[in-house]
Amino acid sequence: MSKILVVFSSLFGANASLADDVARILEEAGAEVRVRGVKQIVLAEAQKADAKASPEATAADLKWADSYVLTSPAHTGMLSAAMKAFVDENHDEIDAGTFLNKAFTGMSTGAYAHAGQERVVDELNAIGSAWGCILVPPSTAFADLNASDGNPYGLSFVLDHGKLPEGPAVADALQVHLRRFVAVTEALAPLREAAPAAASGPATAAEVFG
Amino acid sequence: MSKILVVFSSLFGANASLADDVARILEEAGAEVRVRGVKQIVLAEAQKADAKASPEATAADLKWADSYVLTSPAHTGMLSAAMKAFVDENHDEIDAGTFLNKAFTGMSTGAYAHAGQERVVDELNAIGSAWGCILVPPSTAFADLNASDGNPYGLSFVLDHGKLPEGPAVADALQVHLRRFVAVTEALAPLREAAPAAASGPATAAEVFG
Amino acid sequence: MSKILVVFSSLFGANASLADDVARILEEAGAEVRVRGVKQIVLAEAQKADAKASPEATAADLKWADSYVLTSPAHTGMLSAAMKAFVDENHDEIDAGTFLNKAFTGMSTGAYAHAGQERVVDELNAIGSAWGCILVPPSTAFADLNASDGNPYGLSFVLDHGKLPEGPAVADALQVHLRRFVAVTEALAPLREAAPAAASGPATAAEVFG
Amino acid sequence: MSKILVVFSSLFGANASLADDVARILEEAGAEVRVRGVKQIVLAEAQKADAKASPEATAADLKWADSYVLTSPAHTGMLSAAMKAFVDENHDEIDAGTFLNKAFTGMSTGAYAHAGQERVVDELNAIGSAWGCILVPPSTAFADLNASDGNPYGLSFVLDHGKLPEGPAVADALQVHLRRFVAVTEALAPLREAAPAAASGPATAAEVFG
Repeated sequence: MSKILVVFSSLFGANASLADDVARILEEAGAEVRVRGVKQIVLAEAQKADAKASPEATAADLKWADSYVLTSPAHTGMLSAAMKAFVDENHDEIDAGTFLNKAFTGMSTGAYAHAGQERVVDELNAIGSAWGCILVPPSTAFADLNASDGNPYGLSFVLDHGKLPEGPAVADALQVHLRRFVAVTEALAPLREAAPAAASGPATAAEVFG
Repeated sequence: MSKILVVFSSLFGANASLADDVARILEEAGAEVRVRGVKQIVLAEAQKADAKASPEATAADLKWADSYVLTSPAHTGMLSAAMKAFVDENHDEIDAGTFLNKAFTGMSTGAYAHAGQERVVDELNAIGSAWGCILVPPSTAFADLNASDGNPYGLSFVLDHGKLPEGPAVADALQVHLRRFVAVTEALAPLREAAPAAASGPATAAEVFG
Repeated sequence: MSKILVVFSSLFGANASLADDVARILEEAGAEVRVRGVKQIVLAEAQKADAKASPEATAADLKWADSYVLTSPAHTGMLSAAMKAFVDENHDEIDAGTFLNKAFTGMSTGAYAHAGQERVVDELNAIGSAWGCILVPPSTAFADLNASDGNPYGLSFVLDHGKLPEGPAVADALQVHLRRFVAVTEALAPLREAAPAAASGPATAAEVFG
Repeated sequence: MSKILVVFSSLFGANASLADDVARILEEAGAEVRVRGVKQIVLAEAQKADAKASPEATAADLKWADSYVLTSPAHTGMLSAAMKAFVDENHDEIDAGTFLNKAFTGMSTGAYAHAGQERVVDELNAIGSAWGCILVPPSTAFADLNASDGNPYGLSFVLDHGKLPEGPAVADALQVHLRRFVAVTEALAPLREAAPAAASGPATAAEVFG
C-alpha cells in the first residue's frame, strides 16, 4: 500500500477542501494518506477554522511518504509564501535523500482564468525536480481533464466565490489523474528501495540563502 | 530626479551587498535611492548583521518610488519565502494603482550555474507584470552583460563561497543595465503623472488566498 | 506618430483576425500600423485564405517599427514553430541593435482554459527580453482585463470553435491594454533616438545553434 | 530491455555529439537506443555533415520507444524552431495515446551561462507533460550533477567554442542521470502495458492552430 502525503496552503478553506477531496480519492484507489497544512504567514490571523483543521506538515511526514501532492492558491501569480517557507524549512531533506524517486504532482487554484495557475504548478514541479522526485503531470491526453481546466502541467481550478466549482468536472478530473498517480507511485517502489543515499554538492547555506 | 526603491532578501549578506552596489550606481546615474530589506522567515535567527543593516521595506516605500529593483537569492529554484511574503503583504497596492507604469527589473543570485536564477528573475518579472509595471530586462544585446552571466531576463550572479564574484564583470554589467534602467524610469514619468486610478476586478481575498 | 508592427502566426484565421482587431485599435489610438504574418511550417497546406491575407513580416518591418505586438496560438503549450522560425531567422538583428528600447507585448490564444496561454506569453516576453525591448504586460490592475481572461503576462483568449469569443470583453481588454501600449511606445521615443549601436557578446552561430 | 528514443536538434554538431554520448551511456545501462535528428528549418543550408549523420525522427520512432530523451540548443532562450516543428507535426500522437506513461527527460546547450537553458528544459518538460509522459528531471540531490551545470530541471551544458566542454564533469553527469532514467523507464513498464487508449478532448485543429 502506497503512502501519500497531501500538503496544502489555505487561508479561506478552498485548498483545504481540495486536499480533502484528493485524499478521499487516493484512499479509494488504495493508498494510505496524510493530509497536512502549512503554517500561514501573510494574513494568518484571517485564516478560517476549516483551513486549519489539519495538522501542519513536518519533516517526519516528508520521510514517511512514498509520493507527494502539493496544492497552493495562486497569489500574484505564484505559490503562497507559506508553501515556499515550508519548502525552504525542509531544504536539508534534499541532501538526506528523503525525496529521491518519490512521485510528485502539483495543483493550484486561481481567482481568474489566468491568475497564474500555469505558473504555480510549474513552480511546484520545479520544487519536485530539485527534490529529486519523478513528476506526474496530468497531460492533455484525457478528455475528462480537458473538460475541466485542461492544465497539462498540474490540475488547476478557477474558484467560484472562493469555492471549488460544483459539478462532476472537478471530481472526474481528480479521479482520472489521481488513480494514475497512485499507479505511478506503486510502480516506482523498487527504485525507492534501491535508492542510494544521495549527497548534495558544494552549496553551503550562505550560497543558497545569499 | 527619479526615485528608485531597491528591495532585497538576504540571510548571509550577499544580496544586501548587491543591493548596496546597485544603489551606488543608480545614484551615480542621477537617481534618488532607498535600499530596503524584507523580513526573513526561514532561518531568520541565522541572519547576519550586514544582511539586516537596512530598514525593512514598507508600503510607503512602494508608493514613494518611481521604479523598483528587486533582488532575491534562488532557494530551491525560486525566490525566497521572505520576498514572496513581502509581495503578498502589499497585494492591496495593486488595486490602489501604486505600481502602475513604474519601471521594474529583477536580479538573482545562485549557488550553482543553474540553481534557478533564470526562474527567479522570471518570477520577479511575473510580479512586476501583475503589479502593472513596465519591465526592463537586460537583453542579450550588450557584450558587457554576456561577459558576466548573460541572463537576458534579469541580471544574475553565481556566488563564490557566498559572496558576489570579484572583478570588473559584475560592476560592468550593473553599470550597463542600471544606467539604462534610470533612463527608462525617467522616460515613463509622463505616464505616471497621467495614470488614472486603477481599479482591480472581482477577486476577493477568499478567491486569491484560497 | 508611433510605428507599430503586429506579427501573427495563424493557420485557420483566429490570430489573423485578432491581429486585425489589434491594428484597428492601435490606429484609433494614433499609431501607424503594419500587420504581418509569418510563414507557416506545420500543416502549411491547410492554411486558410484569411490567415494569409497579410504580407509576411521581414527584417525591414522589424527595423521600421517603434514597438511590437506578437501573437501566436498555443501549440502543445508553446508558441508555434512558425513564430519561432521567424524569431530565429532575424537573430542577427539583436547584434545590430534593431530592437533596443522598443516596446513589446505578447498575446496568445488557446483551445482550453489552460492550453499553455500563460506559457506562450511568457515565451514571447522572453523573446522581447533577449531582443532588448521594454516589456508592457497587461497587469491585474484593470477590471476590464480581469473580466476577460485576466492573464497578467500578456492578453490571451480561449477560442470558441476556432474563433475569438464574441461580446464586449475582448474589445474592452484590447482597448485598455493597447491604448496604454501606444502611450509607452511614445514615452520611450527619446531613448530610441539616443540608443548607441549595441554590440553582442562572444556567441558564434555554432554556439547558439549547437 | 527498454527501448529509448533520443531526438536532437543540431546545426553545427554539438547536440548531435551530445545525443551520441547519451546513446552510448544508455546502451551501457542496458537499453536499446535509436538516435534521431529533426529536420532543420532556419539556416538549414549551413548544417554540418556530422549534425545530419543520424536519420530523422518519425512517428514510428515515437511509437516504438518506451521513453524519450530530447535535446535542443537554446536559440533566443527557447528550443529550436526545428524541434518545435517536430513536436507539432506529431500532435495527433497525443490523441492516439502514443506517449502515455513513457519516461521523459530534456537536455539543452547554451552559448552563455544563462542563454535560456533553464527555459529550454522547462519547455521540453512542458512538451512531455502535454504528451502524457512521466518526467525525470536530474534534481539537485547528486554532487556529480551540481559539479557540472547543476540545472535541476534537465541536464544542460555551456558550449566552449561550439563544442561540449571537455573533462569528466559532463560524462559523470550523464552517467548519474541516465542510469536513473533507464531504471525509471523499466519500473514504469507495467503501466504502459495496462495503459488504456487515451482520447483527447474537444480541441479541433482550428482551435489548436488558431
